[in-house]
Amino acid sequence: MSRDSLPGDPRFFQRLGPFSVQALAEAADAEIVGNGDALRPLKGVAPLQSATAEEVSFLDNRRYLPLLAETRAGAVILGSAFQDKLPPGCVGLVAKTPYLAWARVAALFHPVAPARPGIHPSAIIAENAVIAPDAEIGPLAVIGDRVTIGAGTAIGSHVAIGDGVSIGARCRIGSHASVSHSLIGDRVALYPGVRLGQDGFGFAVGPAGFETVPQLGRVVIGDDVEIGANATIDRGSMRDTVIGAGTRIDNLVQIGHNAQLGRCCIVVSQAGISGSTELGDFVTIAAQAGLIGHIKIGDKARIGAQCGVMSDVDAGADVIGSPAMPFREFFRNVAFLRKMAKRPEKDDS
Amino acid sequence: MSRDSLPGDPRFFQRLGPFSVQALAEAADAEIVGNGDALRPLKGVAPLQSATAEEVSFLDNRRYLPLLAETRAGAVILGSAFQDKLPPGCVGLVAKTPYLAWARVAALFHPVAPARPGIHPSAIIAENAVIAPDAEIGPLAVIGDRVTIGAGTAIGSHVAIGDGVSIGARCRIGSHASVSHSLIGDRVALYPGVRLGQDGFGFAVGPAGFETVPQLGRVVIGDDVEIGANATIDRGSMRDTVIGAGTRIDNLVQIGHNAQLGRCCIVVSQAGISGSTELGDFVTIAAQAGLIGHIKIGDKARIGAQCGVMSDVDAGADVIGSPAMPFREFFRNVAFLRKMAKRPEKDDS
Amino acid sequence: MSRDSLPGDPRFFQRLGPFSVQALAEAADAEIVGNGDALRPLKGVAPLQSATAEEVSFLDNRRYLPLLAETRAGAVILGSAFQDKLPPGCVGLVAKTPYLAWARVAALFHPVAPARPGIHPSAIIAENAVIAPDAEIGPLAVIGDRVTIGAGTAIGSHVAIGDGVSIGARCRIGSHASVSHSLIGDRVALYPGVRLGQDGFGFAVGPAGFETVPQLGRVVIGDDVEIGANATIDRGSMRDTVIGAGTRIDNLVQIGHNAQLGRCCIVVSQAGISGSTELGDFVTIAAQAGLIGHIKIGDKARIGAQCGVMSDVDAGADVIGSPAMPFREFFRNVAFLRKMAKRPEKDDS
Repeated sequence: MSRDSLPGDPRFFQRLGPFSVQALAEAADAEIVGNGDALRPLKGVAPLQSATAEEVSFLDNRRYLPLLAETRAGAVILGSAFQDKLPPGCVGLVAKTPYLAWARVAALFHPVAPARPGIHPSAIIAENAVIAPDAEIGPLAVIGDRVTIGAGTAIGSHVAIGDGVSIGARCRIGSHASVSHSLIGDRVALYPGVRLGQDGFGFAVGPAGFETVPQLGRVVIGDDVEIGANATIDRGSMRDTVIGAGTRIDNLVQIGHNAQLGRCCIVVSQAGISGSTELGDFVTIAAQAGLIGHIKIGDKARIGAQCGVMSDVDAGADVIGSPAMPFREFFRNVAFLRKMAKRPEKDDS
Repeated sequence: MSRDSLPGDPRFFQRLGPFSVQALAEAADAEIVGNGDALRPLKGVAPLQSATAEEVSFLDNRRYLPLLAETRAGAVILGSAFQDKLPPGCVGLVAKTPYLAWARVAALFHPVAPARPGIHPSAIIAENAVIAPDAEIGPLAVIGDRVTIGAGTAIGSHVAIGDGVSIGARCRIGSHASVSHSLIGDRVALYPGVRLGQDGFGFAVGPAGFETVPQLGRVVIGDDVEIGANATIDRGSMRDTVIGAGTRIDNLVQIGHNAQLGRCCIVVSQAGISGSTELGDFVTIAAQAGLIGHIKIGDKARIGAQCGVMSDVDAGADVIGSPAMPFREFFRNVAFLRKMAKRPEKDDS
Repeated sequence: MSRDSLPGDPRFFQRLGPFSVQALAEAADAEIVGNGDALRPLKGVAPLQSATAEEVSFLDNRRYLPLLAETRAGAVILGSAFQDKLPPGCVGLVAKTPYLAWARVAALFHPVAPARPGIHPSAIIAENAVIAPDAEIGPLAVIGDRVTIGAGTAIGSHVAIGDGVSIGARCRIGSHASVSHSLIGDRVALYPGVRLGQDGFGFAVGPAGFETVPQLGRVVIGDDVEIGANATIDRGSMRDTVIGAGTRIDNLVQIGHNAQLGRCCIVVSQAGISGSTELGDFVTIAAQAGLIGHIKIGDKARIGAQCGVMSDVDAGADVIGSPAMPFREFFRNVAFLRKMAKRPEKDDS
């Protein structure tokens, strides 16, 4: 790997530091171990294979142990199970949850840039919009009537915020997002091209074709939610579409009208949740999975990739396949079919 | 449900009325029954569980009968099968197709806002574009050479309409939509972020890599079509990509070059229709289904969710699975596999 | 087919010519055969069934032979296998790879319009951006600090290019695309609504919910890459997300952080490639397929439509199904299941 492709290219990323090992250990809630130089200031983060003595790296997965043996990193964040594998001269930062420790250390060097207070002169702002003085409104954004935008929130370029929308504090709304009929909490991130609050897919069969059913609900987004690029979330028809606090939604996800997601759910890219379906808390929906409408998914259930869910799923259940079935059953079926289809068929007589 | 989350939040929705029961019955083509106060004016719509005596509600599904028994709604739209379950003091509006009746009553209270005639000063309009005097052109829209825009059409903010495009009357083009190489009928709705008319995915293998095949067709959209947020419809290569009148396309749907959709088809979110495939009229494609290219789907065929269609489908057929098969066969296979894989295998000898 | 729906509608497409048969043969690297009038200038391209004596058409597929027999085209591009089927009076242009020949002839009549040099006065350009004098910057584009844009590149309307991004020569960036944290080669096409360089889907579980892991890589796009409408490509977390030269990506495709695609890969619409997965060269991923993260796909492997790939795929392998298996095994399983589920079950006793 050339130095050119290292993380944190200064053309794109701000870099703070250097930080002492002690400061990193505090940020990471980690214990300092090993015989490395714990007094050397560290200047950045890097992968095991390219880190220098002035950088901190990270190991979370047994399969990268060979890289640990050869790393020149000044310090490595890792779990206690691997601490005896630290090479000589390398400081260990032993953390209970190394990935979390890593997230915090990386964020120490490369914090999310705060909003740059001010309204770009090209933005078009309704007179009665209420925008916090330290909010940032990007070029060519359009902010509708009675919109409220909270403290420290950054609105990207070309964003459209419809009449009456409320956005909380310290949110980041990516470029080209469009938001209507929505109430958004604090610290919410919408990535570029998100579509929030448009009409749901609702129509009745009339004598001369389909007739649109008015979609009279809203979208309500809890605090700390993130919604990925080009994802679409329709507003409710008779009640609200609700995304619970802390939930993370990936790119190109579709969420239908009236859907209700609980707290800290994960919905991976290209998954779809049909109208009026309800998720508990801590539910995981893997990539390209699809949930039919009007069903309930219990807390902590896990829906596998490409799964087709046609009925309720119990709390804590693991399902996969289309139609969805328990993981064990799915892989048993796959094995059975592989075996049976291969063997020469016996005489039926 | 708090009153705060009721449908029709005045921050987002215009509300007309009050309307007499008689006016609602006319709009709904419904018969007034029951012993409620048919003279009380009604002020809005609400779900059974939260409606007040001044609101009208709706029942379409047997499983909500318990809510009907307890509703305080002043009136309820429902089918004749349920009219004897009306609670005392509640007016029944008995309709043949209650959901359609509901759509019309809700639209009476909350009609789609008409275009606000005028061109926003920030819009960039080619001198030779022809825009109906009562059309609305939103802020920062860009309208190309020779574009025509019909009466009462509303173009949202940040929309890009390419050279030569024609858009009919009373259309609604959502924010951030981009349209090129397209002819659009009347009363068409494009939701935010729709991509219409870009190059199809066409290239030939040349000696030094792929070479693009010029995409020389158009997109032709019939009257009363709706296309969901962030959906993509490529223009044809040698003929047009055609979407028949009345067809409804949901969010994040992909339609490839030269595809032909008939009248009043339904294509649910995240489905994909590959190039040159042809759909008859009244075809339903459920969510996340995929159709290979160059096949034909007959009138009124129904393609199930996540279905993978690799060959023609007869008119009226119901298919599901990947590869597609009749619904009955699919569920028979599922049941067979579940049963067989579970049981201990017999001796092969 | 009415003349109105022919390819090359002059409202949308520039048309050059007429060209001599000889000029077309040279562009197509084709041999002139048959007894047609090889001196008649040709004015455009058209399908077999509607071409006139002044137009050139194309045959690549045996099933359209009946159309060849009846065509009135002045010339037809085709393979040597079909040249004896040319109707009287029709010039044959016999090419080794007829579709490539067709691409080149069609591009002769309808070349991609070059950039129109200049910066639209409504575009917002950072003072320190470096834009080639013959580049085109469309209306309402926003170009960030230190951005470089190469010769002959065309930036569409409403495009957002983030700070530090580098774009090569003769690229076409479609309307509403957003690009950040990216290095883009020459002759790259981004279609409308592409999202390039946003944060990947990375977070750790913290005591109070998910915590974002800083995404410190970039997106690096090789020369001659095309990326379809509304597709999303996340930047890397610790290394770059890389798209190799010549690769073609269709609409609504998702590519996760750190993914590495080789040269001349094809990724068809709505497919998804999860984080850190690596593709060799000339890999084909069909529509709606999904690849789990952290796997390797060998050169020239072909992944079928809707395939769910959970483990490495060998070079040259053909897989389909979810989970992925060899094409032959998949169709054998399908046939076995169809047969077994149909027959009356034998007594188990």
